[in-house]
Amino acid sequence: MSIEALTDASDGPRSKRPAILAAAVECFGELGYEATKWSEVADRVGIGQTALYHYFESKAHCLLTIMRLGLRNSDAAFRRATEDSPTAVAALRAGAAAAYALSPQEVQQNRILQANIALLANARSSEREETERLACRELVARVERNWVDLIERGARSGEFPAHDPVIMSRTVLGLLVSVWRWYRPGGSQSLPAVSEFLVDCTVRMVVGELPATEATAAAS
Amino acid sequence: MSIEALTDASDGPRSKRPAILAAAVECFGELGYEATKWSEVADRVGIGQTALYHYFESKAHCLLTIMRLGLRNSDAAFRRATEDSPTAVAALRAGAAAAYALSPQEVQQNRILQANIALLANARSSEREETERLACRELVARVERNWVDLIERGARSGEFPAHDPVIMSRTVLGLLVSVWRWYRPGGSQSLPAVSEFLVDCTVRMVVGELPATEATAAAS
Repeated sequence: MSIEALTDASDGPRSKRPAILAAAVECFGELGYEATKWSEVADRVGIGQTALYHYFESKAHCLLTIMRLGLRNSDAAFRRATEDSPTAVAALRAGAAAAYALSPQEVQQNRILQANIALLANARSSEREETERLACRELVARVERNWVDLIERGARSGEFPAHDPVIMSRTVLGLLVSVWRWYRPGGSQSLPAVSEFLVDCTVRMVVGELPATEATAAAS
Repeated sequence: MSIEALTDASDGPRSKRPAILAAAVECFGELGYEATKWSEVADRVGIGQTALYHYFESKAHCLLTIMRLGLRNSDAAFRRATEDSPTAVAALRAGAAAAYALSPQEVQQNRILQANIALLANARSSEREETERLACRELVARVERNWVDLIERGARSGEFPAHDPVIMSRTVLGLLVSVWRWYRPGGSQSLPAVSEFLVDCTVRMVVGELPATEATAAAS
């Protein structure tokens, strides 16, 4: 299990924070966030409540931290995957595929992120929770901006038909993350197969034209 | 405000259930489910806690009922919209557009449904909540089945390229509902404009072929 996906730059080598986050990802993924008892997370790590509260003041604080790190990883993965792409279409394929180049733990992290994304809409009364929430919102905007830049690049180069870049970016993102609602590791579809399917869907949606018969029907 | 979207066949004319559900849709939509106090819902309807508990044993019971009715409405709207379509492509357009032929209240109901969909994964300890949860799951399967039937129809008639119908149905549904994560009534995009954009995205994704240059690149 990769722990890097759950480590902050400020975590020292003896910090229990990454291990607590990994245990919380397991619990929230298996039982759901609402049904997970906060004490269960401490039990899995083998620490007491006092040590747990040293790192996280609440279950929500821990959840928001998992969400922020998931968003941070998505942003970084997109940039790494697309930075050397010679064309906008190549960048589109690489950026979409990067959404699925994940360990099973990162898949759980993404499922938790998407299942709880509505939490980012409303202010938190706790200061530490609110700090994480605002950081999440900034990262959501950055991830969206990455896609807007890519859509605009493709329109400028003439590789993509002209679409509203903001609504197209949100639509691509919505398409890509929709997988986390039904994909389960070990299910009937492998993650590489899902990735290939979704990358092709993205390309048809962004680069494709309406089929000729359809274009006639739509115009009539 | 349409109350039919929140009425069950078994609700008598004097039932306060639809009014309670409408107030809950308002509260959950404005404040989020988690942040809404259950007593606030009673206050908005102008009834006491006792009357409230006569209809719903918990905030979760009320939420699951809102979700079930939203799913029931989606299933019915899809069937109505597609039953007379002469071709699979026409049914695809009509079925996708039906997802957005909604009143502002129904938009809120769909946002609440999608924001809390992860709640359907795990069993509830309360019997009445569990009944609603299982009914929701059955409706999710039925909505997915509607789309599978449509995708298979298009493949049989040769209108759609062959795609795995289950994964394509989930992907179309994920694409269509992703709108509820960012669309707000009165925002920069009107609902008819959003509908047109998403219907065209759906058609390109399901019916389209990879552009010729792209097909070459993908094969190389």
